[in-house]
Amino acid sequence: MLIFNKHFLATQSSESKKIINDAVEVVNDEIKSDRVGYYKLPTLSLQLIEQLKEIDTSSFEQIVIMGIGGSSLGIKAINTILRPITPHAKEIIFFENSDPLTITENLIKIKKEKACFFLISKSGSTIETTSTFKTIVDYCKIDMDADNNRIFAITDKGSSLSVFAQHHKFHEFNIPDNVGGRFSVLSAVGVVPLALAGYDMTKLLNGAEGFISRFFEGKEDHLLEKAYSFYENSKTQSINVVFSYADRLEDLTKWYVQLWGESLGKIDQDGNRVGLTPIGIIGAVDQHSFLQLVIEGPKDKSLTFINIEDFKNNLLVPDITLYGIEKTNFINNKSFNTLINAQCEATMQSVIQSGVNTDAITLDFISENNIGELIVYFELLTSLLGAMFKVNTYNQPGVELGKQILYKNLENS
Amino acid sequence: MLIFNKHFLATQSSESKKIINDAVEVVNDEIKSDRVGYYKLPTLSLQLIEQLKEIDTSSFEQIVIMGIGGSSLGIKAINTILRPITPHAKEIIFFENSDPLTITENLIKIKKEKACFFLISKSGSTIETTSTFKTIVDYCKIDMDADNNRIFAITDKGSSLSVFAQHHKFHEFNIPDNVGGRFSVLSAVGVVPLALAGYDMTKLLNGAEGFISRFFEGKEDHLLEKAYSFYENSKTQSINVVFSYADRLEDLTKWYVQLWGESLGKIDQDGNRVGLTPIGIIGAVDQHSFLQLVIEGPKDKSLTFINIEDFKNNLLVPDITLYGIEKTNFINNKSFNTLINAQCEATMQSVIQSGVNTDAITLDFISENNIGELIVYFELLTSLLGAMFKVNTYNQPGVELGKQILYKNLENS
Repeated sequence: MLIFNKHFLATQSSESKKIINDAVEVVNDEIKSDRVGYYKLPTLSLQLIEQLKEIDTSSFEQIVIMGIGGSSLGIKAINTILRPITPHAKEIIFFENSDPLTITENLIKIKKEKACFFLISKSGSTIETTSTFKTIVDYCKIDMDADNNRIFAITDKGSSLSVFAQHHKFHEFNIPDNVGGRFSVLSAVGVVPLALAGYDMTKLLNGAEGFISRFFEGKEDHLLEKAYSFYENSKTQSINVVFSYADRLEDLTKWYVQLWGESLGKIDQDGNRVGLTPIGIIGAVDQHSFLQLVIEGPKDKSLTFINIEDFKNNLLVPDITLYGIEKTNFINNKSFNTLINAQCEATMQSVIQSGVNTDAITLDFISENNIGELIVYFELLTSLLGAMFKVNTYNQPGVELGKQILYKNLENS
Repeated sequence: MLIFNKHFLATQSSESKKIINDAVEVVNDEIKSDRVGYYKLPTLSLQLIEQLKEIDTSSFEQIVIMGIGGSSLGIKAINTILRPITPHAKEIIFFENSDPLTITENLIKIKKEKACFFLISKSGSTIETTSTFKTIVDYCKIDMDADNNRIFAITDKGSSLSVFAQHHKFHEFNIPDNVGGRFSVLSAVGVVPLALAGYDMTKLLNGAEGFISRFFEGKEDHLLEKAYSFYENSKTQSINVVFSYADRLEDLTKWYVQLWGESLGKIDQDGNRVGLTPIGIIGAVDQHSFLQLVIEGPKDKSLTFINIEDFKNNLLVPDITLYGIEKTNFINNKSFNTLINAQCEATMQSVIQSGVNTDAITLDFISENNIGELIVYFELLTSLLGAMFKVNTYNQPGVELGKQILYKNLENS
């Protein structure tokens, strides 16, 4: 269960109601017209889990993922947060960046005979992913025909990667055309490798589906208020900081940063540059870095706190007195679970007292269901904000120029 | 060697010259009056390395660090970036946050008989650090008197941690009073554990000292231009994004985020809220998340690119043709070193073409000397900007309220 709290004033003007209603209409139109496909992924993807049962995966102990951006961030986020509650999950090794030191270090970890390999690229020809694949083929001496039962391609129907996969008879899974990379975590992109690793993706998809259904039934309207508040204040509060009080939420906030940055940082239909800058930080660690800026710096930020009520861990601060430091004894015999949540609460109170718009999401505990809900919560929020900003939430024209320059420079070098 | 480039127009007005001169005067006054101590650390800390030679550290294979914020971020940054060129460095385990899952996971990694323990807290009573220490004492059955030769305390003279350390005769090193936590990486805080781990801190300190000397001799004036550009544009460009093209620079950007956030996010002497929001991201990975926002979103950001010219790694993309994906063959036989730098260059060109203020720092390769330079580069930039903003760069009043609320809530719970 997720518990949502807001510590900001929601406007009740007729103008705000109209903007909210228009945004609801846009997302309803998106789902009805099938222009935007991520809303239906939780239901669609259950079939993938069935399909996986036909593949013999008993010899795989290690999952090697080649993907970047939308093809890796979501998988990484779920793997990081669910691993402590899924101790027997298979190891996952991520090849994302083109950093030669990281690639060299990761190559050594691969146990070829026990590994399966995931090539993930929506477009099919992502430069980092294909370069890394070539490197792994060479390093592990993979025979693409003889070893095809341990190679999985996840890509758009008809893409160059799909052509390649069919040529060598790899396992192939497709991403629906109407699902963009950064909204694809609940498609084959996330579901196939994570289910194969041993995560209970059925529960995660059910959690996601439940939240989406409730939202479209009008039972999660707090999302509308929050989206409107962000929209209304976007000129002055151009930064949204997600402050998570759990180390394992760091990768989820990286996923959220891509989702927001690439979806909302756009030129709107009137030619204005819009969007909010997303920042993900981790408490209590980053209290030591970001809090001063929030409290006394420019009032250009809103804050979203995420915490976990019950870590299902009873590690206590032992009842030990340190000579000279007796004044910290008040924490003795309390759990670290209590401490980190007290730090979250105290930081939140100090931020609210400083007049910063703040809201909070509490997970009662870490579960597949809760993570599924949290993922679609951020996706729906993004769609609503995109509708309010009047941008195309699902394209990314701004990243094309860099790619063109890269290709030209490399081809001429 | 660091190479600095700027892709923004520097103002040459008489007003800008006055503001720059005033800032130079402030930092000169800081160093002369001894009010601010970090400028002299590179020289002072060389003595620490001498002192360490008197301690028998041959039995330590593992270094356990308990510290948070300024007491861990800098150590972590240096450990991450220098490890590939220092393969025999001892393992370092960091206990930073109060997350019960992370602490539980880290406890298991400790090999008591081969470990030494660093308690690092400038104030002496940081709640995360003392709580973790108690937990480790309990878990590893540490006898604080019998095991005192493997316990190191790094703290202010006369702090509660110092009292505790002297009571049990731990090794003790002090942080100069005039050096704040976030400026302390080149004091005992960073130098003692990293030198003990096997890093060549002499070279790093020499690199830092060289840059500081050149700056005060007027030979690194590009820093003045950059600081002024940030100051001049701070109302409209309130965010500075450091975009590093090397995975191992991520921890260094986290250190920089604390340095900037906590130093510059302040109420200035006229009562205005000032400061810039620092964001650290990693390329090419985060091109897939942040670039769209930079190119088409609000023009509220400046960008600083960092890249490494020579990774000293010759991993090549093998000359393999993938059926259907032949169009990526142009990268075959090129090195990943070439690819990641081409990505950096292409991204930078696309950002500059979009009219975003941009500058670039290139490390010719990863070396202790270069990292020392880079650290003081960011420290000096921070001091200059603080002087221009007319804030107290070295305090952090905004984080006190949260601490008071935390203590009250926990004592009453």
